Amino acid sequence: MAKGDPIRYGESVIIVDEKKGKSFYVLLKEKGELGTHKGKISHDQIVGKPEGSAIYSSTGERFFVFRPLVSDKMMKVQRKTQIVYPKDAGWLILSLDLSPGMKVIEIGTGSGAFTILLAHIVGPEGKVYTFDRREEFLENAKKNLERAGLIDRVEFQILNAGDPFPVKDVSAIFLDLPEPWRAIPPAREALLPGRPVSIIVPTAEQLKTTVSSLKENGFMIMDIVEILERKILVREKEGVRPFEKMVGFTGYLISARKVID
Amino acid sequence: MAKGDPIRYGESVIIVDEKKGKSFYVLLKEKGELGTHKGKISHDQIVGKPEGSAIYSSTGERFFVFRPLVSDKMMKVQRKTQIVYPKDAGWLILSLDLSPGMKVIEIGTGSGAFTILLAHIVGPEGKVYTFDRREEFLENAKKNLERAGLIDRVEFQILNAGDPFPVKDVSAIFLDLPEPWRAIPPAREALLPGRPVSIIVPTAEQLKTTVSSLKENGFMIMDIVEILERKILVREKEGVRPFEKMVGFTGYLISARKVID
Amino acid sequence: MAKGDPIRYGESVIIVDEKKGKSFYVLLKEKGELGTHKGKISHDQIVGKPEGSAIYSSTGERFFVFRPLVSDKMMKVQRKTQIVYPKDAGWLILSLDLSPGMKVIEIGTGSGAFTILLAHIVGPEGKVYTFDRREEFLENAKKNLERAGLIDRVEFQILNAGDPFPVKDVSAIFLDLPEPWRAIPPAREALLPGRPVSIIVPTAEQLKTTVSSLKENGFMIMDIVEILERKILVREKEGVRPFEKMVGFTGYLISARKVID
Amino acid sequence: MAKGDPIRYGESVIIVDEKKGKSFYVLLKEKGELGTHKGKISHDQIVGKPEGSAIYSSTGERFFVFRPLVSDKMMKVQRKTQIVYPKDAGWLILSLDLSPGMKVIEIGTGSGAFTILLAHIVGPEGKVYTFDRREEFLENAKKNLERAGLIDRVEFQILNAGDPFPVKDVSAIFLDLPEPWRAIPPAREALLPGRPVSIIVPTAEQLKTTVSSLKENGFMIMDIVEILERKILVREKEGVRPFEKMVGFTGYLISARKVID
Repeated sequence: MAKGDPIRYGESVIIVDEKKGKSFYVLLKEKGELGTHKGKISHDQIVGKPEGSAIYSSTGERFFVFRPLVSDKMMKVQRKTQIVYPKDAGWLILSLDLSPGMKVIEIGTGSGAFTILLAHIVGPEGKVYTFDRREEFLENAKKNLERAGLIDRVEFQILNAGDPFPVKDVSAIFLDLPEPWRAIPPAREALLPGRPVSIIVPTAEQLKTTVSSLKENGFMIMDIVEILERKILVREKEGVRPFEKMVGFTGYLISARKVID
Repeated sequence: MAKGDPIRYGESVIIVDEKKGKSFYVLLKEKGELGTHKGKISHDQIVGKPEGSAIYSSTGERFFVFRPLVSDKMMKVQRKTQIVYPKDAGWLILSLDLSPGMKVIEIGTGSGAFTILLAHIVGPEGKVYTFDRREEFLENAKKNLERAGLIDRVEFQILNAGDPFPVKDVSAIFLDLPEPWRAIPPAREALLPGRPVSIIVPTAEQLKTTVSSLKENGFMIMDIVEILERKILVREKEGVRPFEKMVGFTGYLISARKVID
Repeated sequence: MAKGDPIRYGESVIIVDEKKGKSFYVLLKEKGELGTHKGKISHDQIVGKPEGSAIYSSTGERFFVFRPLVSDKMMKVQRKTQIVYPKDAGWLILSLDLSPGMKVIEIGTGSGAFTILLAHIVGPEGKVYTFDRREEFLENAKKNLERAGLIDRVEFQILNAGDPFPVKDVSAIFLDLPEPWRAIPPAREALLPGRPVSIIVPTAEQLKTTVSSLKENGFMIMDIVEILERKILVREKEGVRPFEKMVGFTGYLISARKVID
Repeated sequence: MAKGDPIRYGESVIIVDEKKGKSFYVLLKEKGELGTHKGKISHDQIVGKPEGSAIYSSTGERFFVFRPLVSDKMMKVQRKTQIVYPKDAGWLILSLDLSPGMKVIEIGTGSGAFTILLAHIVGPEGKVYTFDRREEFLENAKKNLERAGLIDRVEFQILNAGDPFPVKDVSAIFLDLPEPWRAIPPAREALLPGRPVSIIVPTAEQLKTTVSSLKENGFMIMDIVEILERKILVREKEGVRPFEKMVGFTGYLISARKVID
């Protein structure tokens, strides 16, 4: 399934209507069929085409078929929890200094959306260790990672907040759990010196407690931010302006590095 | 220079004062010395320590030494142009669907800040082709990539807006030039079907012209956004609140995918 | 109906449920009754009480009754058009330099929400001249002003964009119409020298055309802004954070002053 | 000094250079002279002209002269403290439901910028009672109100946080002091039932404490927001885009109404 190859049965694809009003995440099967608001689309007409190809529904509407980008995979996970949104995820890739071949820890796994991104970026030679205290979240996340074609790069394990991490000498740690300060001492144990931990928290109070805990546990705060994404509308006639609605808040993001004295 | 190894002569490091008031990007040499606002720091006391270590200036002030993260490398380039900021860069990694081993085109190179990120993310098995119409920008960018230790993954070449690209079948293209619409037809030629192009433009008018050109040249618009980063101040006594100043605007970001019919 | 007096039949009041989940704008009548999602409320138990009083529904739920603030009156107009939102309206009061006794022109009237604010601020000794090209909008706005108890301060008139204004020597002019540049020359005629015109426009293109027209017609641009309002959630347990959703955009606001040479 | 009248000696005016690069707040005197970065301007050439008139400096540069708008008066106060900015002030006018003839309390006075706005909006028949614990702030604010021509509408008095207010039955109260919760019980005493109190606080912690105190003291929270103002750049050639820098934060704004049960 290299980029540029024709699409095959067994692949999951994104089917988007021409005006980008709606998109569908579909696993292609022989004689499979997708029912849309604008007619039916047979899987068979998709297979063999390169991605980006136009396909037509039974009512003659034009759609395009794409292999999912990593952001599509993230947004299309089966959700059991709030997910890390792409706008925050992009910032986190940089603050975590992710690169190919890296060993990284994530806690908690949640629905696995950010796990997908971690696995995508560290590549086949990297490894993502993801921990969650709830079995059902891990089971759901495994399915999401499997569908994303990235499960080989991920180790899943049950872990309670505060427990020591079962891996050491990792290059980056991401924390997304209700009381991140409980995971900070074991994070320090598992992280290589000088390397980054990034954390997302939902409220000002949790932010303050987390920052205090980081300082007490030998971390230097590098950055605390929130990211706002404004979608822009560009229309031939009406002109350019931001959308009327936007996502107002998803969390505070903290970046820190382990220090030693 | 693997992560976790002691720091050596010949490495570039970041030296940060304890309160993160100021940071220095320093190439370590035998008997080298850094003059700061808070006394002198000898390079020799740094070498042999792991990153993250505390070091002390001649006046007894505490600093910490780190290997540069990719965002440090980006922000510390010698600038001849406006650079792509980390807040936008993170979004672009996702919209460009970057991953290890990928072949990607950037035009224009500018100061090479985003080139550094591209090279970092595609890894040693990927390749970044970066083009600029100005020789002096390429020369400066080469030095920045060299210092970042990433020059082996990058091909530099002079190219005027509108010229065909000398590489084909790339998986992603990033455009950051004054008239991006002139580079859209050659971008289409060079890009694999279904794959993404991302573009940054500074004004509403350029945004509109670029979007029209994308549509006319067989691209489907996926997203148009601007990213705002608010820095948050967390202080023990005074409490939590956003900073009084912020960067108000750096550009509109467009993401599109090549389609065929 | 002075502030502090008991509420009387014939007044319009706002009835808000204790958790501020929902509010009702009600004209009080003898034996009147309000049906809510949490039981019925008789008008009779409201009359005679001071505003701010607790009242109880048939199911024992607690509500509070208030006289409408000017922002309540604005938000509760019968809408036939997009209205000017309080966040923008506040900025406009300042940019228009409104004060008691002032004569001010508004074009177009729309649903009359901003007309209500103008009339509220200029007071009983001021006068608002509001023009719209559509009879049906004026009729609807009149009803809204009547309900708001402010109709005595307002003159309504049909006017097409580009027509000369039937009043002169006004102290401020507000323009909210599709092609505001058509109203700029007559606005100049009607406005006292040095005094402000403020304009709301929805797109970047309209903004540019309007600004050019202002400059050509002897106005000095003072300010061009957009106003973002983020609602903040404060909860005892969960803590402080911005709301997850927000209004992303309502318009660009321009402020200019008439100059002479 | 009615609007439209020629400018006279003894008036304070705003002199703005043509490109709005800089503005000067000047008290006009016979034979007075203003030194600018672009030559000298004699007061005598200003007097007798209507506001909005062009005037020329000794080097032939064009300036315009205006009577100060209320926002000019606010921004040009002699500052001894942080002031309430126009973006927040506009929101507060609405949340405080200000109108001509109203009696309103402000605590603390600070530099008097918002006091100016309050006095401007309540008009000659209204009254502003402003309290501060520091004599020197009151003295400075008096000068600022005097220059703004609004001192007749304002009563100044020293008051410590927590002291009962010396006026009762006011229609609105604005609190801007370090520990606003200390002023909430006396605010309740002084405010008419159902009427609004608005408060500005700088941090999330103060916001939380203030909101709790409001609830405990019989206020219903109506709104908690922060206001962001983005300045927009419109240039003929380069096009439309937001400014590169913006004010990131000035405070959280709370609006509540007094309730009784």
